[in-house]
This record gives sequence, C-alpha cells and structure tokens, in this order.
Amino acid sequence: MTIKDIAEILKQNNNFEILTHNYPDGDCLGSGFGLCLALRQIGKNANVITTDLPKSFDYITEKVANQSFEPAYIVSVDVADEKLLGKNEEKYKGRIDLCIDHHASNTIEAKYRYVDPESAAAGEIIYEVIKELGAEITVDIANCLYTAVSTDTGCFRYANTTSRTLRIASDLLDLGCDSAYINKVMFETKSKRRIELERDILDKMIFCADDKCAIIYTTCEMVEGMGDDETEGIASIPRQIEGVKLGITIREKQGGEYKVSARTTEDVDACAFCAQFGGGGHVAAAGCTIKGTLEGTIAKLKEAAEKTL
Amino acid sequence: MTIKDIAEILKQNNNFEILTHNYPDGDCLGSGFGLCLALRQIGKNANVITTDLPKSFDYITEKVANQSFEPAYIVSVDVADEKLLGKNEEKYKGRIDLCIDHHASNTIEAKYRYVDPESAAAGEIIYEVIKELGAEITVDIANCLYTAVSTDTGCFRYANTTSRTLRIASDLLDLGCDSAYINKVMFETKSKRRIELERDILDKMIFCADDKCAIIYTTCEMVEGMGDDETEGIASIPRQIEGVKLGITIREKQGGEYKVSARTTEDVDACAFCAQFGGGGHVAAAGCTIKGTLEGTIAKLKEAAEKTL
Repeated sequence: MTIKDIAEILKQNNNFEILTHNYPDGDCLGSGFGLCLALRQIGKNANVITTDLPKSFDYITEKVANQSFEPAYIVSVDVADEKLLGKNEEKYKGRIDLCIDHHASNTIEAKYRYVDPESAAAGEIIYEVIKELGAEITVDIANCLYTAVSTDTGCFRYANTTSRTLRIASDLLDLGCDSAYINKVMFETKSKRRIELERDILDKMIFCADDKCAIIYTTCEMVEGMGDDETEGIASIPRQIEGVKLGITIREKQGGEYKVSARTTEDVDACAFCAQFGGGGHVAAAGCTIKGTLEGTIAKLKEAAEKTL
Repeated sequence: MTIKDIAEILKQNNNFEILTHNYPDGDCLGSGFGLCLALRQIGKNANVITTDLPKSFDYITEKVANQSFEPAYIVSVDVADEKLLGKNEEKYKGRIDLCIDHHASNTIEAKYRYVDPESAAAGEIIYEVIKELGAEITVDIANCLYTAVSTDTGCFRYANTTSRTLRIASDLLDLGCDSAYINKVMFETKSKRRIELERDILDKMIFCADDKCAIIYTTCEMVEGMGDDETEGIASIPRQIEGVKLGITIREKQGGEYKVSARTTEDVDACAFCAQFGGGGHVAAAGCTIKGTLEGTIAKLKEAAEKTL
C-alpha cells in the first residue's frame, strides 16, 4: 500500500470514524484530529473516537466538535493493537477498515493496512496523506500534526527522529503552527504535583545490573488524582542516567496490574525484553503488563535485566 | 553585510584564529570548529581559540588538532562582548577583524560585523557561510553544526526555533550527522550526581508570592567537584512549574557571593527584576550578583518577588 492508495480509499468512502488508542498521546490525537479536519475539508463526515482526554490537549480537541452521521468507514490511527482501544475495544473489534500506524509490532488485521515503522510518528504518515488528499494544511491541522511529530520524538530529541521528521516540522512552522505554545505546554510545563512526584520517584529509584539498569515506579497512591498528562514522560527519567542502558518504569494500575515501559540504548532490545512478559513495541521503547505485587514485579524485572545486560 | 560578503572576506584572507566565548557551549564550539574545518578544507590555516573545554564536547574538539602558523586574521563566533573571551580577553581585545554573532546585544566593534538576531544559533549563520564558501559539509562539520543549532534551541524546543533552524537540522541529518549520539550526550544524559542534585534542589525549593515565584538554590557544597556541564540548565527548573511567573536560581560562589538567574514568563520583566540588584539581561532571562549570606539573599529576593508580582 502507498500513501496514494490511502488517499484514494479515503476519497472513495465517507462517514469516517477515526480510532485512537487509550491513554491518548500527542501522536494519536494530533494524527486523528488532523486527519479528521482534512477529511471534513474535502467534504466528508468524520469524527475522532477517543477514550479519556487529558486537558493539555484542549487546544486540539476543542476545534473539532462531533458531527452527527451514520458511521460507515472505520480508520485506526497510531493504534498498534485492538486491545489498546480501551473502552472502545468491544465495539470496534474486527471492524477496522483501514489501519494507519508506525509501530512495527502492529497486530491489527484491518481490510487495509499501512504500517511504516520508518515514520517517527503516525503524524508523518498523516501529513503525507493530507497532502495527497489535496487538502490545505490549515493552521489548525498544522497544530495537530506538529503536536504529533514533536511529542513522539520528545521534541526531535529521540533517535527515531529523521531528516523527514525535521523537514515536516519545518514545513508546519512555515504553515503557521504555534510551535512555541505547543512546546511550552507539551515539554516545558510541569505542575507542582508533578515536580513533587519526580522528587518522590528519584528518591525511590532502584539500580541493578551494575547500574546498567535503573528502575523507577509509581503507585496508585503516588499519582492519585493526577491526570495522564501530568504523569506523562516519566518513563524517560531512568534511561537518561549516565551508564544506564535499560531504563524501566513501572506504573501500578487498579487491580494488581503493573504497566511496564522499557527504554533502552541502541545495543539493548526493549521489544525483546518486554516480549518475555507478553509485551512488545519498538527496539528502543517497549511495554508490557505484569500482574502481581509491586515487589514481585520489581523482582521479576530485576532478574530479567540481570540476564539481559 | 551579507553571507556572501563573509565568504568573500574569508576567501581573501588566511591564517585564521576563531574566538569562542568562555564557559563554552554547543553553539560557540560547534560554530567555531565547524568553520575551522571548512576553512582548512578550502586550503586555509585555521585554529579555534577556546577557554576551558567541557569533556562532553570531546567528539567535536578531538577531530581538530591545532595547526602551527602565524595568526593573521581574527574571527569571533557567538561572542556577544569582548569580556566574554575570558582569559583570552587581554590578548584579543580590540583586535577582532570579523565578528559573527546572533546576539542582539552584541557590543563588539570589529572591522566587519555580521550580527543576525533572527538566527536561533550562530551555527545557522555558519551553515550558510560554509555553503557560500563552496566547502563540502562533511560528517564532522555536520556534527559541529548540528551541535550548534540543537543546543541553542534546547533541541528545537525553545521559542527561538524557526522553520529555517529545523530545515538546516534536517539537511544536517541528510548529510550524515550523528544526531542520535549528539542528542543523547547533550540532552539525555545526566550523571547520577546530577540526578541527586536535582532531587536535592527540588527538596529545598521555596515558593512565594502566592506560588507565582519559585526559588531554587545550590551551595558550593551541593555542587562540589561537579563540572559546569553537569550543573548546566538547572535555572530552567523553577520556571517550568505551572503557575510560576518568576523562576529564580541562586548559585553560591566562593567568598559569600551569590549568582542569581531570573527566568520569567512574558508578563514579568526579568531584566527589571535583576536591575534592582545591579544586574541585567533579557526580558525573559536575566541575572545579578548579591553579596551576603544565603538566607539574606533568599530574603531579599523573596521581598522583591512579592513586590514585583
């Protein structure tokens, strides 16, 4: 499948529902709402289907009021697995017509699939699709797409950033996106509570495998009342430490479940590491879920880390 | 003066000394060494004159062994004032032939001046100059220039980033610069000691003026044995906090002197704030020095903050 094919399919259909993943981030929301605006611009009906929305993305979501129509074509954006649809999984399971994603681990069996792991963000694909659709990239769309490409690359800091990512960002600035505002909200603003959480996390950080692995964790109590946007990005803390090749973040969820993210340097495969626990993802960033106690989860991860490193 | 003029001047002269500022950063070193490599490539003699070099820039400086020649033409890069030449000030004062900079506040009275405050980094100017010289942007030069443009923009996060900055960065990636390595060293690596310092700073953070002002401080003891590169950037911590309009960082220096940096959001004038203590700077970032005790310094700053906010 090519970008041209995607544009053709979108032109031939109508009444779109665009699915995004749970715990939505800048890439799925920016890509989803950007695509939605472009489709509406070329005369289509389109809505974005989301789970709970962090308030920090209001500047994107507030521009796109829901339309009323009978849905006929389901597109997923940045969703690597139907399980990640969260509360929308039941409804849309097995019904996705077109899947657009950039996760190599994508498992969705849609009618049409376009999965490009070379793209740092799904937003890069959506940018090309919108251009191919012949829609104008308005300031609102540029803000959506800039949010997408900047957030999935840590503001162009992560190793997934390519010359194409930067060229698209450059184009979006020329098209009038408010990168100063978006960068401030996404990368430069922390709540007092967040600052306290970071301090707390650093206090409890665990090192293992000769300091080549650092593990941090949050319990439900530590993040009580905090939105997802307030706790976002903590997974990048442990890998930042000099000498750390495997940075692990554990997040306690309700019901004895622990969401684990692994971030690695080039020579350690985060995806393979998480696959041991039934998870997956990218080489440098992957995730899995472990059931049990916090202590048990830490012990399992430590053991796996010692073996891996 | 135009970029073309700069290239012409460089072509017509030889035996260059390229001056950089004290407490060197990625922009002055990347720009200086990038220009030096390009000049050598077109058959010129050139050296970069530096003050103490942080180890983190070894990947730049190690590629450029000093040449032996009688200096004949002095170029300053990213140096806003002769005072900033540090230990080299005496030697080069009043002798700069060509001054290339991007600080609006530049005070250097060189024979030729090219000061472009629209450039986020001096590296943007040097990139254009090298292209105009007709030199090839080798991987080594690309690494220098990527370091320059990325560090002065906080990896493209600060509001000074333009579409040109991003387009140059994109070009440099195409030319083979190792952005993944550079980003990791410059933006993603913190020593364990630095992590501990941050925790310590957060533990001791002071809020005042209805939480609109946050004050952090480091004592000589807290940073003992740490290099400037290890303590860099802490001044951005307090302003990041939601609701904080005035973020103050106090650094104890030897002899009962306290270096104060103020960072503000748009509606608070950091320069005016610091002027009360005999300092100055920009609207959003300024500094001053206060003599006395830590407690006294904090008390003075709190009082001034309450009055200002």
